[in-house]
Amino acid sequence: MNQNICWIGVDWGITHLRCYALNDEGNLLDSASSKDGINKIKDAKFEEALLTVIDPWLESGKVTPVLACGMVGSRNGWLETPFQKTPCRPCDYEQFVRITCNDSRIKIYVIPGVANLKQIDLMRGEETQLAGLLCDIDSAIVCLPGTHSKWVQIKDGRIEKFSTFISGELFDLMSNKSMIRYSVNKDGWDNNAFTEGVLSSFKTPELLSNSFFKLRADDLMHNIDHAALRSKLSGLIIGLELAGAKDYLKEQNVQLIGEPVLNNLYSIALSLLKVETSAHNASQITLSGLKYGFNSMQKYLGSEQKGNNG
Amino acid sequence: MNQNICWIGVDWGITHLRCYALNDEGNLLDSASSKDGINKIKDAKFEEALLTVIDPWLESGKVTPVLACGMVGSRNGWLETPFQKTPCRPCDYEQFVRITCNDSRIKIYVIPGVANLKQIDLMRGEETQLAGLLCDIDSAIVCLPGTHSKWVQIKDGRIEKFSTFISGELFDLMSNKSMIRYSVNKDGWDNNAFTEGVLSSFKTPELLSNSFFKLRADDLMHNIDHAALRSKLSGLIIGLELAGAKDYLKEQNVQLIGEPVLNNLYSIALSLLKVETSAHNASQITLSGLKYGFNSMQKYLGSEQKGNNG
Repeated sequence: MNQNICWIGVDWGITHLRCYALNDEGNLLDSASSKDGINKIKDAKFEEALLTVIDPWLESGKVTPVLACGMVGSRNGWLETPFQKTPCRPCDYEQFVRITCNDSRIKIYVIPGVANLKQIDLMRGEETQLAGLLCDIDSAIVCLPGTHSKWVQIKDGRIEKFSTFISGELFDLMSNKSMIRYSVNKDGWDNNAFTEGVLSSFKTPELLSNSFFKLRADDLMHNIDHAALRSKLSGLIIGLELAGAKDYLKEQNVQLIGEPVLNNLYSIALSLLKVETSAHNASQITLSGLKYGFNSMQKYLGSEQKGNNG
Repeated sequence: MNQNICWIGVDWGITHLRCYALNDEGNLLDSASSKDGINKIKDAKFEEALLTVIDPWLESGKVTPVLACGMVGSRNGWLETPFQKTPCRPCDYEQFVRITCNDSRIKIYVIPGVANLKQIDLMRGEETQLAGLLCDIDSAIVCLPGTHSKWVQIKDGRIEKFSTFISGELFDLMSNKSMIRYSVNKDGWDNNAFTEGVLSSFKTPELLSNSFFKLRADDLMHNIDHAALRSKLSGLIIGLELAGAKDYLKEQNVQLIGEPVLNNLYSIALSLLKVETSAHNASQITLSGLKYGFNSMQKYLGSEQKGNNG
């Protein structure tokens, strides 16, 4: 198998390290991952963490290109890479940054994140998912739900503008660290409570911190089921995000890129606002984006080589 | 001194236990406190924690009344006491709840909290501060800033309605537990940044979770001073509260009951909305409220005694 591996794609985020082995046609030959997210790496041992996962794919005497995206290029990552500025085409080879490493079997490139100077906003990793979407769609409104949800306007293959909402992190803080955690500590799902939460925050976003307290009060006063209160909490936070993203909601179709569970929640929430959605799996589209980036690198190197020969 | 102590007032919250020794004219003879807040008490050892503080004030052979307010009457407290319902006069003796205890030198009464059934909201402790305010004012809009800020409408000596905003808790979560903590980890004060935050959230509350992310982005992109970002975070959260409390802001004067630092912040924030404020110190007004409660108990017991005699 090793002989067919042409390059390696890496998605290296805060909490995960996912690696893909591909052949020269971009077909997936193997994948592997570890929990060595950026936050876990001590003493800058990035190369060691990466080799632990990809070593079985490498051969001595052969150099395998590695293309990496995500927080690996952030201030706390392996090497802080400068941001591309909007409007821009994501995953443009000319912006890739080479990382010097000790192992001569690999040659590592990092895909830079994108900065929105006007709106003061940043992304690292999502630009690769957007590039994955660009394989099929040229212009779109995209929502990437998650810890730090992004709303993005893409036009003619370029990222025009985007905004980040810390919805996933807010849900995590409220459900695990706040005093209302005692009232939302049960799994399960109540769609009515979720819907109520979405519409409540969408209509009256100014009542968010009052609504948070009411979850606790409702529990103490009326013994409401904690799974319903958890669903409502989720709805309140997503509803706030949708109210904040209303500039992006003028078009009535949104491309969702996220984990299936989140895509489903956002699809329900957006349907309440009569917005249609198409869902894309986050991991799959990241891989497509890495291929997009590798192809742009190949084309560039190809034309460069031709230039040198000519 | 002990011989003059007529009764003991207790303010027992989540994180503090404050006790006051008073004579029969309501003059403060002594005060003492400990960090045995409700959250610290293990194995329901409430009586032991209280006696540790007030024992020096007690005499054998004499029974001293103790009047307590705050979370001591909550589900996690010494005894869960039923709520008074709005509209109601706070600190009404007929609603006090007696706690049975082992030490025969004390007789303990708990002031119940207040529930707002219509708005689904609760208070425990603030009703005593409001009673303290009632010594001077009959009708008012009151803001009690803190971990769980309360906005209250008082009319003719009764609590008509109120709403809670978890502003203090949200600030604590964002500044200590979220990913933006790295960008707001510096003390100091920047009034312009605070003002910017207040007005931003007041005008566009739906952008709260986007504004949170921008604090981090602004740090990474422009190296903004972390004290300024911390001030802005404070402003964003208080601005959201003011936007949510706008039903209470129809009158152009607000009574603030809080710690001096918080009173000052809210006073600055409200002045941006052309709202005037009068500030009251939280601890002092709690003591006034406890006196108000003790007096109502005395009057009631007095009239009862007269009734019995007549």
